[in-house]
Amino acid sequence: MTETKGAKSEQTRALIVETALRLFRERGYDATTMRAIAKEAGVSVGNAYYYFGSKEELIQAYFDDLQEEHVKACQAVLDAERAFAPRLLGVLKARVDTMVPYHEFAGKFFKFAAEPTSPLNPFSAESGPSRASALAIYREVVDGSNLKIDSEFRQELPELLWLYSMGIVLYWVHDSSPGCRKTYLLVERTVPLVDRMVSMSRLPGFKSVTRELVSIIREVRD
Amino acid sequence: MTETKGAKSEQTRALIVETALRLFRERGYDATTMRAIAKEAGVSVGNAYYYFGSKEELIQAYFDDLQEEHVKACQAVLDAERAFAPRLLGVLKARVDTMVPYHEFAGKFFKFAAEPTSPLNPFSAESGPSRASALAIYREVVDGSNLKIDSEFRQELPELLWLYSMGIVLYWVHDSSPGCRKTYLLVERTVPLVDRMVSMSRLPGFKSVTRELVSIIREVRD
Repeated sequence: MTETKGAKSEQTRALIVETALRLFRERGYDATTMRAIAKEAGVSVGNAYYYFGSKEELIQAYFDDLQEEHVKACQAVLDAERAFAPRLLGVLKARVDTMVPYHEFAGKFFKFAAEPTSPLNPFSAESGPSRASALAIYREVVDGSNLKIDSEFRQELPELLWLYSMGIVLYWVHDSSPGCRKTYLLVERTVPLVDRMVSMSRLPGFKSVTRELVSIIREVRD
Repeated sequence: MTETKGAKSEQTRALIVETALRLFRERGYDATTMRAIAKEAGVSVGNAYYYFGSKEELIQAYFDDLQEEHVKACQAVLDAERAFAPRLLGVLKARVDTMVPYHEFAGKFFKFAAEPTSPLNPFSAESGPSRASALAIYREVVDGSNLKIDSEFRQELPELLWLYSMGIVLYWVHDSSPGCRKTYLLVERTVPLVDRMVSMSRLPGFKSVTRELVSIIREVRD
């Protein structure tokens, strides 16, 4: 019984998010009220507010759903591959795959994530769980691979890879090529380069640069 | 006569921008009308519209002014230094110096620049002149230095440095340390690293990575 109820609740929640996204896209964010979202989704206003306290929370839900989708989309490649480069490539391609259907939408909403005081920005406290989930993926890319690198650098590498993935998202937001072809190209072309640079981090002469990088990250991180 | 008139016109324009920035900060962007800006600046509404067709153009003017200020603030260090690292350090510190007074303000307005369809985003056609001016600074950092690097890499380096500076701006937007101390720290700590990596680009083993990077930049650039 409880499971059925939980499933129904999850279904209602998903329906509200989906409806909200569609209305935001069609009518604009400011012009869309919670009342309109509830009406269009066929639920009461009180019910809509039971799930989401505000329109902003609906966008947070979209970001969270996207993150969950990405985790699922990565699993196959993370289970199958041991080498660092194909693991990273698979994870980044999966990231773009999950985002592509929302390209027009994400362009409109990206600005919410860009405001430093907004709970929607990826560095905010509210985005903490989503950020932790994203970081965990890049930690698994590193830890599940056969990569041999300095242990200190290894600790910081997942966060660097996450920042790299954010750079790709930023490029994708501005990418107007058909099917986001150029973003895929960017991923395919930069992963081998990142792989080479990460491997080179062990070479003498590069080692001190790597250590310096690790120490900078630790110093400037919030 | 014309010069005096030009100076007065420039003064009025500056007064309108300054007043607008203050009102946006105090009352919020949406709540501030062109009428209110004109009234507060002591000019007619028609006069305000003569200078700026919309509120968005006022933000563009702010970004443009910031860029001009940066150009001026860089000149001393670019005239005095020949080595790459101090040139880059001076330019980036000057960039932060010019932005710091607007820290609270920029946080609020950053989201305008983040929207891909907005003329205010740094990759837009409208931001072309401002972007060209910014790129010219980083070209001068490289070309006026005694740096010895591969000629193909040299051509692309200014754009890479500009992207690096945008990364610093992004960090700055989120920096809540007193006086943006952490942003200065980030600049001071990363410039030597960038300098080392740029110099290393000539070493065998690193050369092919550099060439690969150049070819990627050319492929994925719009």
